[in-house]
Amino acid sequence: MKIAILGFGIVGSGVAELLTGNTEQISLAADQQVELKYILDIQSFPDSPFADKFVQDFSTIEQDRSVRAVVETIGGVGAAYDFTKRALLAGKSVITSNKELVASHGYELLTLAKEQNVNYLFEASVGGGIPIIRPICQCLSANEISEVCGILNGTTNFMLTEMVRKNVSFDAALADAQARGYAEADPAADIDGDDACRKICILGSLSFGRHIDPEQVPADGIRNVTLQDVAYARSASKKIKLLARAMRLPDGRVAAYVSPHLIPKMSILSNVEDVFNGIVVKGNAIGDVMFYGPGAGKFPTASAVVADVIDCAKHLDARKHMVWNEGGPDTFADPAAIPSRWYVRTPAGGERCFYPLPLVLLTYPGSDPTESAFLTEPISQTDLAPMLEQAGAYCAFRILD
Amino acid sequence: MKIAILGFGIVGSGVAELLTGNTEQISLAADQQVELKYILDIQSFPDSPFADKFVQDFSTIEQDRSVRAVVETIGGVGAAYDFTKRALLAGKSVITSNKELVASHGYELLTLAKEQNVNYLFEASVGGGIPIIRPICQCLSANEISEVCGILNGTTNFMLTEMVRKNVSFDAALADAQARGYAEADPAADIDGDDACRKICILGSLSFGRHIDPEQVPADGIRNVTLQDVAYARSASKKIKLLARAMRLPDGRVAAYVSPHLIPKMSILSNVEDVFNGIVVKGNAIGDVMFYGPGAGKFPTASAVVADVIDCAKHLDARKHMVWNEGGPDTFADPAAIPSRWYVRTPAGGERCFYPLPLVLLTYPGSDPTESAFLTEPISQTDLAPMLEQAGAYCAFRILD
Repeated sequence: MKIAILGFGIVGSGVAELLTGNTEQISLAADQQVELKYILDIQSFPDSPFADKFVQDFSTIEQDRSVRAVVETIGGVGAAYDFTKRALLAGKSVITSNKELVASHGYELLTLAKEQNVNYLFEASVGGGIPIIRPICQCLSANEISEVCGILNGTTNFMLTEMVRKNVSFDAALADAQARGYAEADPAADIDGDDACRKICILGSLSFGRHIDPEQVPADGIRNVTLQDVAYARSASKKIKLLARAMRLPDGRVAAYVSPHLIPKMSILSNVEDVFNGIVVKGNAIGDVMFYGPGAGKFPTASAVVADVIDCAKHLDARKHMVWNEGGPDTFADPAAIPSRWYVRTPAGGERCFYPLPLVLLTYPGSDPTESAFLTEPISQTDLAPMLEQAGAYCAFRILD
Repeated sequence: MKIAILGFGIVGSGVAELLTGNTEQISLAADQQVELKYILDIQSFPDSPFADKFVQDFSTIEQDRSVRAVVETIGGVGAAYDFTKRALLAGKSVITSNKELVASHGYELLTLAKEQNVNYLFEASVGGGIPIIRPICQCLSANEISEVCGILNGTTNFMLTEMVRKNVSFDAALADAQARGYAEADPAADIDGDDACRKICILGSLSFGRHIDPEQVPADGIRNVTLQDVAYARSASKKIKLLARAMRLPDGRVAAYVSPHLIPKMSILSNVEDVFNGIVVKGNAIGDVMFYGPGAGKFPTASAVVADVIDCAKHLDARKHMVWNEGGPDTFADPAAIPSRWYVRTPAGGERCFYPLPLVLLTYPGSDPTESAFLTEPISQTDLAPMLEQAGAYCAFRILD
């Protein structure tokens, strides 16, 4: 099977190197040779070992019938969207790591792939190299899934881990993440929760069978998390983690959101530290399973892309069963209506505004006497909101029980 | 697709219930109806909702050409082995949860399935419902796997969790496990490590491509673990877990063993508690990934069986790529030659017998002055053995770093 790579960035170059480095392993698994014929990029790379494969015009790839699959590692929803559609229309399968494109146009592209009897595969779009898309589709296919919940953004998880371990502030943790190359110069997509939001949309769409658009999903990032919150959480044997959740409600609608949570130190997600991701899936037969691993990085992500390439090679003339239906407002519930316990931090005495909701007050050695912090009994965000306002609350994070 | 279930025990009845309970989900995933036509069991179950499906003669199933797949949930290597071979020879795919049969006869049965162009699938044989077999074969297929390491036995993990959390002795923890139905009246297969041994043989065979026989793999159980060991481990911020490991050595040979380990409290395996299993796979592209979930139980295990049934339905006329080669003594290395750090407990002063190996002595409030406990620098089991003997050591467990 001949393939082309679109975009020779970090992931694209990782795919090229992995295809040539683990050749024996890959041919064995794919039952055939997988040959990299073209690499499309705007730049040229004259010193690259792949220099002879570069092309700058997508038409070359589009019109070459020997290319059966295209790896899209461009990212974004511009050229990536255009080339993906053209490749599918030309009867080529497309494999991608592009979470933004899958989250926003997944329904359309999966439908197009189905019409063309080719595959649109995106294992690498969530959780880097962690196997998660295929396990949800295949291994858990005997289950009705009720919830997917996970730590889906490695950058923010690294920052929260630093804040807990080294007692450094949000700003210092961000500077450290940028210095290590984990966070971009403009870190908004990570720290405001947009990246995790796209990923939970993909997992939710797949688990519940209806397209969930990132526009529908409220996302709170970690800008509000302070060292005081970290210390209060520790006093309650909990850690603060940015969780993305999608759940099926008893009426069949789906709710999804991204926000910081306090999670018990004993929970399996609690030891998911640094840039790692952990994704819990709840099924009605299996109960809870978790998938854990590096959530990003050149070779982990390339590993997932190449696994899809191999799968594609083995199913060249058979479409993989992976599709979801159109979404829409009627299928989606407002997560603000979902009750949970909450952690709240307010000016001192703010707890009085929550009467008669039962609270557990928190303190730690050296905690600030001008503040109150407490855990509430379960209440919806909607019902909590006026109390938070009245108390002038600094923050309110859900508790994962 | 019509199927038959062999053996109406806990897992077999779970499969029957899941097939009828999650019908819509399953038909959708399988692209067709999956119909349970026969259940083979020696007993009859006149009050079962499946009463009309029972047969007592395997030939009925063997000769019915409409039955394309057989679910073997008998267990053991007697009738299960015989019926599996006959089913494969009759051109039927076989799906099993039988770890003993796969571990001991996997090479032969996979080869027979390949010859017959049918499938032999065993996702449920390791880790209950946790997706692990398919992820290793498919999702990580771009990787060269260097190690598989995990908590593969839920009963012993429950007992060790009780010993740590409740400070109860091995005997009390065993009695509790038996009272809850986690351990059998004869608990030897669990607590002596045989069950974990079979499972690591399956994972190792799959990961490294050569059959590993349970006879080749030394297995130590948890009979030697005392509350003193638990307390010493805690003093070093570690927990005691029964790990099963299979690793590829630089020379290409494979080493495997089962034994208690001290693992760091920060490690992701450390929060795998109670009857849960956790399996870490190390790949050269992806790094470390972990799969976590309930390692046993009726519906978790049935969930994995039914996922294989669905996969089988979708590949009725195409064999799944899953096979390993013959094993043999030349492919296998003695794990006693592999160095690691060790935890050792001896009569007081025993540390003198380990000179000049650097040691870290352990104590905890109330520790027994007639004993010594310490952590060693890396050393092979072979080299450690004479020191242990000379010191009259009570126990020596590897440390997972």
